[in-house]
Amino acid sequence: MALTSQSKDFPKWYQDVVAKAELAEGGPVRGTMVIRPYGYSIWERMQAEVDVRIKATGTQNAYFPLFIPEEYLQKEATHLEGFSPELAVVTYGGGKELSEPVVVRPTSETIINSFIAKWVKSHRDLPLKLNQWANVVRWEMRPRIFLRTTEFLWQEGHTAHATEEEAWDFAVQILNEVYRDFMEGVLKVPVFTGIKTEAEKFPGATHSLACEAMMKDGKALQMGTSHALGQSFSKMFNIKYLDKDGEHFVWQTSWGVSSRMMGGLIMTHGDDSGLNIPSGLAPIQVVIIVVKDDPEVLEMADKISNELIEAGVRVVVDTSTQESVGRRSVDWEIKGIPVRLELGPRDVKENQAILVRRDLAQNKDLAKAPVSLDDVVSKTSDALLEAEEQIAKAALTQKNENTFPVKSIDEALEATKTGFAVMPWDDLGASGEAVLLENGVSVRCLQKSSPENERDLPKSTDEPNLVAILARAY
Amino acid sequence: MALTSQSKDFPKWYQDVVAKAELAEGGPVRGTMVIRPYGYSIWERMQAEVDVRIKATGTQNAYFPLFIPEEYLQKEATHLEGFSPELAVVTYGGGKELSEPVVVRPTSETIINSFIAKWVKSHRDLPLKLNQWANVVRWEMRPRIFLRTTEFLWQEGHTAHATEEEAWDFAVQILNEVYRDFMEGVLKVPVFTGIKTEAEKFPGATHSLACEAMMKDGKALQMGTSHALGQSFSKMFNIKYLDKDGEHFVWQTSWGVSSRMMGGLIMTHGDDSGLNIPSGLAPIQVVIIVVKDDPEVLEMADKISNELIEAGVRVVVDTSTQESVGRRSVDWEIKGIPVRLELGPRDVKENQAILVRRDLAQNKDLAKAPVSLDDVVSKTSDALLEAEEQIAKAALTQKNENTFPVKSIDEALEATKTGFAVMPWDDLGASGEAVLLENGVSVRCLQKSSPENERDLPKSTDEPNLVAILARAY
Repeated sequence: MALTSQSKDFPKWYQDVVAKAELAEGGPVRGTMVIRPYGYSIWERMQAEVDVRIKATGTQNAYFPLFIPEEYLQKEATHLEGFSPELAVVTYGGGKELSEPVVVRPTSETIINSFIAKWVKSHRDLPLKLNQWANVVRWEMRPRIFLRTTEFLWQEGHTAHATEEEAWDFAVQILNEVYRDFMEGVLKVPVFTGIKTEAEKFPGATHSLACEAMMKDGKALQMGTSHALGQSFSKMFNIKYLDKDGEHFVWQTSWGVSSRMMGGLIMTHGDDSGLNIPSGLAPIQVVIIVVKDDPEVLEMADKISNELIEAGVRVVVDTSTQESVGRRSVDWEIKGIPVRLELGPRDVKENQAILVRRDLAQNKDLAKAPVSLDDVVSKTSDALLEAEEQIAKAALTQKNENTFPVKSIDEALEATKTGFAVMPWDDLGASGEAVLLENGVSVRCLQKSSPENERDLPKSTDEPNLVAILARAY
Repeated sequence: MALTSQSKDFPKWYQDVVAKAELAEGGPVRGTMVIRPYGYSIWERMQAEVDVRIKATGTQNAYFPLFIPEEYLQKEATHLEGFSPELAVVTYGGGKELSEPVVVRPTSETIINSFIAKWVKSHRDLPLKLNQWANVVRWEMRPRIFLRTTEFLWQEGHTAHATEEEAWDFAVQILNEVYRDFMEGVLKVPVFTGIKTEAEKFPGATHSLACEAMMKDGKALQMGTSHALGQSFSKMFNIKYLDKDGEHFVWQTSWGVSSRMMGGLIMTHGDDSGLNIPSGLAPIQVVIIVVKDDPEVLEMADKISNELIEAGVRVVVDTSTQESVGRRSVDWEIKGIPVRLELGPRDVKENQAILVRRDLAQNKDLAKAPVSLDDVVSKTSDALLEAEEQIAKAALTQKNENTFPVKSIDEALEATKTGFAVMPWDDLGASGEAVLLENGVSVRCLQKSSPENERDLPKSTDEPNLVAILARAY
């Protein structure tokens, strides 16, 4: 069960973790994936955390069809151009060739806006804020599990507003209060937030905002995007509202995060022992390892388990004593369970358990400590909090220590071999961006050089004094 | 906003409720549907209730690909024959014609079992119990929203067991402890449970169990099914486990409920005032109608709302005073909100609100009563409970009063014009079943004539003393 080490071959390490932690595997149709129960239990917790934040913005969930008439995509030229190479097309249905082929949704701006056009009549119908949790399909030539798959799971929000300013503010609110808050608060993945360049923005958007995270190999992963769509879709689908001044086209946003965040979680916190999950997110926070099949040990394990469950801790008891403790410990470490409690006959006699923190697995001496069974619940809860803090701190250090201010394209190319580069956008410009891109480095986002606070984002790529965040990206 | 009455035209009444309660509407591709926010909020609550019951059986959620290679379906002949007329086939992907067309899943036995074959090696890997929440596609020639749609939402469970008996017991457990418990306990939809005849069973199953509900027009709706698959898929996909006696093929089950249950909810409890939702399920349990835009009324409405929220009640405040109270009341009744509290300036002065129970809307005198604001929370909670009990009772009465014992095919045809017929299966047989079917009446399920309890189901259609539940069906 040994993993390839990160330093030896990072992509192979990633594949190993995905397979050996039993998170997911490839499906029979190229680029598709099976999310296995343990991987899916992490995704369910991500969904729940994102969903509650989305609902807190006044957005309602709904569900729109998987199948979109081909002509819908043709209505927005940039959008079609962006997605057409990736489309899956159904040409047979119910045993017959279809007179009009249908597209499997790559994203749902077109179909959702065709309905928003029916539902919005008056200014009283605005803002209209919709979200759906769904699968989407973008045919993928170079698939990688969780990062680029032909089918993936996501949420996509679609809103309509009376004014450009209100739509913009909402796109920013989603980026900050939903995505950034979830990523930094729950995933413990620190992100760069900013605006996308013209070359990198979403097909059909006027402005795209993004959260970009640094993986342990120094590459960037786009973790989520929030787009101001202007009036491009409202004009194509004739979405108008009436107020005292007459009829107006609405201003719109769309925004999404996906199962790709699973990849971000793995590559931000994982180490040579495997996955490493922040305690708040972990579907299993504590595993109690029954060292020996002994009635007293089993009884005590159940007792501790019940006490932890009562304290709100998510716990499992591992009674697979046919396997060695060492083997089982390695397997649970690969799965990234934050805290392990080892309990054998001698421990029960000595009224103790051995508490092992997963985040310290690379430092075996620090990781293990005996805890008295009298305060095992409080000690375990403390360990969960400390482990999460440590994970968050390590990720922030990794990001900060590998982000380098640069002054030239050459320096940027050098710096992005191991991390991110930050360069004045006025110095780089679209022409510099093109040169970088030829060398596999992209502008991940543009930030203000002196923002008032973390949530202060540029409103346009033309603003003065922006800095470009540069990286190789997944 | 007036609805067609049930007695005048039941199918039109159904369409009206779906549209005017803003539950759903048809999508642009034939047979697809858009589930609108209010409809989706009901579905989300159904999902949560079903999901917790599924997990309580030790089943884990996972996710399998939407796209299935065509050859997978061809492996199980009966299964293929059953589904092939309904398949949607993708022939273009990523801008190219595919060398091997892929099918959009109509159900996932084939793809899931191809993975179970990889994951099951030893008796220690059993039982393996998987479930997924997903969209599936079955091309529909006569679509009806929620009841028969080309794409629908569902959960599908797939399990593998060491013995035939264990698989059977699990199929029964799902039918009773998950489906029946949810339908009767939460939806308040009483169901007939039993085994399907050979003619009606799932393509690929050895035995199919079903929950069948009676709609208000006397027709049956199949609300959920649980299948024993025998070894048909394990032999096709080579799913074997090893124990001390050697290698054995596993025994399997599959089971599902879908967004079709939305239709069952509407047609079991709805009346000429619209939808009628049991309090426990209702996403909105109470609406407070602010009668007049008056600061004291608004303040009191907020106060009551907060008190109700604290008491765990799901409440909204309707401040749309630009619309008449009558119009708004009708709209909330159509949406089936169990309790309405009307609050105007005079009410506030008199320290009261008018409490209106939705389930009594067809009996206006009984429906309305003033309640003191001093005990508005307890009175509202009582009303929610009473409304739910009343709904459950009415549905059970409807079912019992329209189920008729019959002795001949002629009597069965007569009885099923308005309800269900019950006839000894030994008297009917497969030949009688065929005659009924020609007349639009089907055997919904077979039950024991003297079951030991509600959960006691036949193990085979060949058992003596079975009775056939007969009905026209959706």
